[in-house]
Amino acid sequence: MKRLTILGSTGSIGTQTLDIVRQNPEQLEVFALAAGKNVQEIELQAREFKPRIIGLMEEKAARELKQRVADLDIEVVSGMEGLLRTVTDEVPDTVVTAISGRIGLEPTLEALKAGKDIALANKETLVAGGDLVMRTAQRLGRTILPVDSEHSAIFQCLEEDPRTLDKIILTASGGPFRGWSEEQLQEVTPERALQHPNWAMGAKITIDSATMMNKGLEVIEAHHLFHMEYDQIEVLIHPQSVIHSMVQYCDGSVLAQCGRPDMRLPIQYALTYPTRWPNPFERLDLRGKTLTFFDPEDYDFPALKLAYACGKRGGTLPAVMNAANEVAVHAFLARRVAYLEIIGLVDKVCSEHDVLDATDLETILNADHWARIRTEELIHG
Amino acid sequence: MKRLTILGSTGSIGTQTLDIVRQNPEQLEVFALAAGKNVQEIELQAREFKPRIIGLMEEKAARELKQRVADLDIEVVSGMEGLLRTVTDEVPDTVVTAISGRIGLEPTLEALKAGKDIALANKETLVAGGDLVMRTAQRLGRTILPVDSEHSAIFQCLEEDPRTLDKIILTASGGPFRGWSEEQLQEVTPERALQHPNWAMGAKITIDSATMMNKGLEVIEAHHLFHMEYDQIEVLIHPQSVIHSMVQYCDGSVLAQCGRPDMRLPIQYALTYPTRWPNPFERLDLRGKTLTFFDPEDYDFPALKLAYACGKRGGTLPAVMNAANEVAVHAFLARRVAYLEIIGLVDKVCSEHDVLDATDLETILNADHWARIRTEELIHG
Repeated sequence: MKRLTILGSTGSIGTQTLDIVRQNPEQLEVFALAAGKNVQEIELQAREFKPRIIGLMEEKAARELKQRVADLDIEVVSGMEGLLRTVTDEVPDTVVTAISGRIGLEPTLEALKAGKDIALANKETLVAGGDLVMRTAQRLGRTILPVDSEHSAIFQCLEEDPRTLDKIILTASGGPFRGWSEEQLQEVTPERALQHPNWAMGAKITIDSATMMNKGLEVIEAHHLFHMEYDQIEVLIHPQSVIHSMVQYCDGSVLAQCGRPDMRLPIQYALTYPTRWPNPFERLDLRGKTLTFFDPEDYDFPALKLAYACGKRGGTLPAVMNAANEVAVHAFLARRVAYLEIIGLVDKVCSEHDVLDATDLETILNADHWARIRTEELIHG
Repeated sequence: MKRLTILGSTGSIGTQTLDIVRQNPEQLEVFALAAGKNVQEIELQAREFKPRIIGLMEEKAARELKQRVADLDIEVVSGMEGLLRTVTDEVPDTVVTAISGRIGLEPTLEALKAGKDIALANKETLVAGGDLVMRTAQRLGRTILPVDSEHSAIFQCLEEDPRTLDKIILTASGGPFRGWSEEQLQEVTPERALQHPNWAMGAKITIDSATMMNKGLEVIEAHHLFHMEYDQIEVLIHPQSVIHSMVQYCDGSVLAQCGRPDMRLPIQYALTYPTRWPNPFERLDLRGKTLTFFDPEDYDFPALKLAYACGKRGGTLPAVMNAANEVAVHAFLARRVAYLEIIGLVDKVCSEHDVLDATDLETILNADHWARIRTEELIHG
């Protein structure tokens, strides 16, 4: 029996994680759930999964939930302190970090220190604090299992001897706007950008997929997870999202992981590794399918280039890029900036940043904080 | 240093195996070479690789070679006895079985009994005597590593726990005649059938690829190599031959091995497993590529259906099917039967056969012998 804390249980990955728990009641148990403020949804989850603790970031929402679940034996906690309580308790084995954004960094570090394995669905954590997180995991002998479909694919294709790995190839759908002209992109609304061709995901990651910043974040995530240099990480446009990513070995052999665009598969694998469990999900059927592949260089993806540059420079720069992107994307969703301004803002903030070594949490959080304020200033500009 | 005996060193797989040896002189050494009768080619190989023994099936050719290489310290042997001498000597570690046809069965069994690992490029051996060969290997703790690109692909995609494997998916180019009408097929000459769209191979396997009997033989080979039931083995038409085969796990995840159509890659892997060695071969580049997939059921491939039926029935029937096919293919190459008659002949011989258990070599060889004579009779008709 594996006992889970799920951070972000009301989000897309969180609810799909609970679907895996639902289907494997003998193997998985929910110890704690944490979310932002969605009281209604988390009450339903509380009644179905009977967690021992629920954490809500918003104080008011936590008070309301407390009253709603008064008939259940559940401890309701709030704020970052409450969130940390759900991951540091001695009971859970694995923490699923399914919250969106850099806010996942501290809980991830605290969970590792408390001896938990991580099922990582929060790429911003590794972008902002990859060196620190990976070093902490290694020092404490904890495992970080990727939930992102691309990184799960790579993880599934890895062989024992890391020296035989030549490069990893992250596939990218290219988003809904691949090949669009600047005139067309100027008109992009949040509603339009939220329609992803292949995957149903949360709002922030869907916008990141449209700008290709998501792939940029994934490149940095892959650098940390798989200890690869940036010139060993390639991006390949593959609009059908059937091949979720690939690895190439030193003999030229390429292993690829394929599947339907169903996030429950990588989530489940992160919970079952090193074995696999059967499930009733629809199977991939390639009969009649056509798969195509394109060079991202054939398109103008400034976010991807920026992410490579920030990743290579390292230090606090990826944290700044990520923070500026988080602010800019939320500003776009709130119609405060235009679609084409998102990456321009991120680029400007990155260019203004005095990069420091990112060896400790405080330095990273300071850089993140500065970037958020600076991005807001530029938006208000 | 791994010491090799290469059976079939003048054939397509044999010469490519020598290319791997040529590129890895510190890791690989040729102990013995064996071939049919190509004296000229094997003399060149003898001078380059300095094997200690050379076996030629043809007595006359062996005598000629002996004179030609009198200046070298090489023992020249002949016939099946000579062939067995090259595989049972105590020196070699691995025997590469790169000869074509059922004739590989005895040397493979003898090599296993002499404690050798097998790099298997001779699928007819497993089709004719799969149970016997696999049981012998298991009993003696020897390894049979696949060289066929499809089976190497599957082998590369396998994880440790065999219980999680749901099915294997053998890809097939579909050959040069996929979708051709019966009228068109009636006109097929050996020259035309020897033009394979993707792979440069020996004559027998190229004809088998055209009729799809090659894929049928591979289905039976996969059944034995990977201990899969026939309903767990699927064939998928994939004309571009980029994905060399796939496996599907019980959670729905599909792993695929991809590469350029270069047999040196699976040959090298069979010699380097469980690690990989770098090489200068051209790399797969998917940018701009389109991959397509079709259901073999959409086409009329009688050889594939026959092979599944013979494999499922088991016993001596696969050996009979294989023997009849060997005779029919060579008769086609000699213009003694028409292209469309090949599989009809095999089918007829199979239908006449009284199936026995294939528990010992003698029973298998008797069935094989009967099938060859019966096929010849039907050809002479």
